[in-house]
Amino acid sequence: MELSQVLKQCQHLVNPYRIQNGDGFRLEQIDPGDTLDLPTDKKGAREALEQGVEMLSELQQRLYAQNKWAVLLVFQAMDAAGKDGTIKHVMSGVNPQGCQVCSFKAPSALDLDHDYLWRANQSLPERGRIGIFNRSYYEETLVVRVHPELLAKQSLPPALLGPKLWKQRFEDIRHYEQYLNRNGVVVLKFFLHLSKKEQKRRFLQRLERPEKNWKFSAADIRERGFWEDYMQAYQEMIRETATAQAPWYVVPADHKWFTRLVVAAAVIERLDALDLRYPEVSPEAKQALARAREQLLSE
Amino acid sequence: MELSQVLKQCQHLVNPYRIQNGDGFRLEQIDPGDTLDLPTDKKGAREALEQGVEMLSELQQRLYAQNKWAVLLVFQAMDAAGKDGTIKHVMSGVNPQGCQVCSFKAPSALDLDHDYLWRANQSLPERGRIGIFNRSYYEETLVVRVHPELLAKQSLPPALLGPKLWKQRFEDIRHYEQYLNRNGVVVLKFFLHLSKKEQKRRFLQRLERPEKNWKFSAADIRERGFWEDYMQAYQEMIRETATAQAPWYVVPADHKWFTRLVVAAAVIERLDALDLRYPEVSPEAKQALARAREQLLSE
Repeated sequence: MELSQVLKQCQHLVNPYRIQNGDGFRLEQIDPGDTLDLPTDKKGAREALEQGVEMLSELQQRLYAQNKWAVLLVFQAMDAAGKDGTIKHVMSGVNPQGCQVCSFKAPSALDLDHDYLWRANQSLPERGRIGIFNRSYYEETLVVRVHPELLAKQSLPPALLGPKLWKQRFEDIRHYEQYLNRNGVVVLKFFLHLSKKEQKRRFLQRLERPEKNWKFSAADIRERGFWEDYMQAYQEMIRETATAQAPWYVVPADHKWFTRLVVAAAVIERLDALDLRYPEVSPEAKQALARAREQLLSE
Repeated sequence: MELSQVLKQCQHLVNPYRIQNGDGFRLEQIDPGDTLDLPTDKKGAREALEQGVEMLSELQQRLYAQNKWAVLLVFQAMDAAGKDGTIKHVMSGVNPQGCQVCSFKAPSALDLDHDYLWRANQSLPERGRIGIFNRSYYEETLVVRVHPELLAKQSLPPALLGPKLWKQRFEDIRHYEQYLNRNGVVVLKFFLHLSKKEQKRRFLQRLERPEKNWKFSAADIRERGFWEDYMQAYQEMIRETATAQAPWYVVPADHKWFTRLVVAAAVIERLDALDLRYPEVSPEAKQALARAREQLLSE
């Protein structure tokens, strides 16, 4: 297929889910079960994704060779929404030398002794790389918000724990991403939007199929009990931090094949817009290459 | 001397040099040779500094025990203005376990592959500590501005190198310090303000006294050639980034004893305002302590 055609398909897949201005955004606007009426045969979806991964791999090689931009992909979702699977299937074609995944678990004692962006910042991708955050600093506006006792653990001076705290965190995160953008780090943020019903189905699978048991943790059920609080927190997070330079992609997640296609399409589209090129070789450098070749041949 | 008296003296020393709003600031406003007409006998100055260091040490112990705030002291200056000596004399009384100095030299290849705050961020002090930046991210608005070829080395995507670059850097730095402040990192910034004439005298000393030769580098003379450009860059830096939450202290630096007194006074005053206290022991914890004591005694 022609490059321009692929890009057009990507835009078709991504446009409905890209939020560049969060004002008034409501999660209900996007149906977790949406598939844009695409034919759901598994073979077709797999082939489309393969094509996407190939294209992604080519774009990433150029990103790496040019060594000017870095790309940060942030993944946030409820449990069982498919973050790990999406990362695996979308990014597996990419050279690992130019791609790094960082999974953020509960913060360590050393992390807690610093500001909350500190550990994220250390794991930012270098120029020329794609960095993936499997969960991220956005947890500071999600789990920490739903469970205020986690905020207490952060040992912040009490004078700073005012009612403006969340507004300030959102503002600080907007500023942070603006700064990153100005310094060559392109930020894409994915919220994998799963329905409560589909989460139940996937949890039951994990409990009923022995080979999936390892994926289940009792904490998952506990967090499910806070579903509405989380949805509120996600919605406000998207409202407050979706910007033109660092958009949120709210990706329907009830159908895994569709989630993966949309994520691949979003990354392809964004990388393509960077107009990545292999570095040009100057006339002097070309002459030096020619001399080196002659020298080798005359050996 | 009474604590309240010491604090009053600190305010007297610091008030003329603290810039909390940079609008319209001019470097000429502050005379590098100023000493506030204090008596210049060396013994008196040494005694005052000793007293200051003692108080600083006490405040730092409380900071460490409370483990909520972190303090970041940023030092910027022309060569030979006395950064190293000031750090040494003001901070030597402080427990090194609660105090760390980070000297920023030319960025490494890995540093250059990241955004310019990346390496600074890694060296931020933990809660309860005082961190000292001997030079800092402000070099990005000083040496990089005076020598644009250094900007080229940063491999930024050309699309980002517009005329707004410096305004954006100042804005980003303001946002960064605001974020730090909101997360319990108190930022104090010192510009040691040296006259061109006094720099010449100190350079000649370094050249003429064998035991001072090691301090001299040919690059120092080269940078001196850009004196006016640097003064412009410092002035704009202060105008753009002096805020109530992260003020600049423009400290006269032609007299070392005076520089040190003013820096010590500024740190004391700021730490005192944090109302640092040793953590309170709860009644339950007190009971536990009593039981432990009994147990030990009955051995």
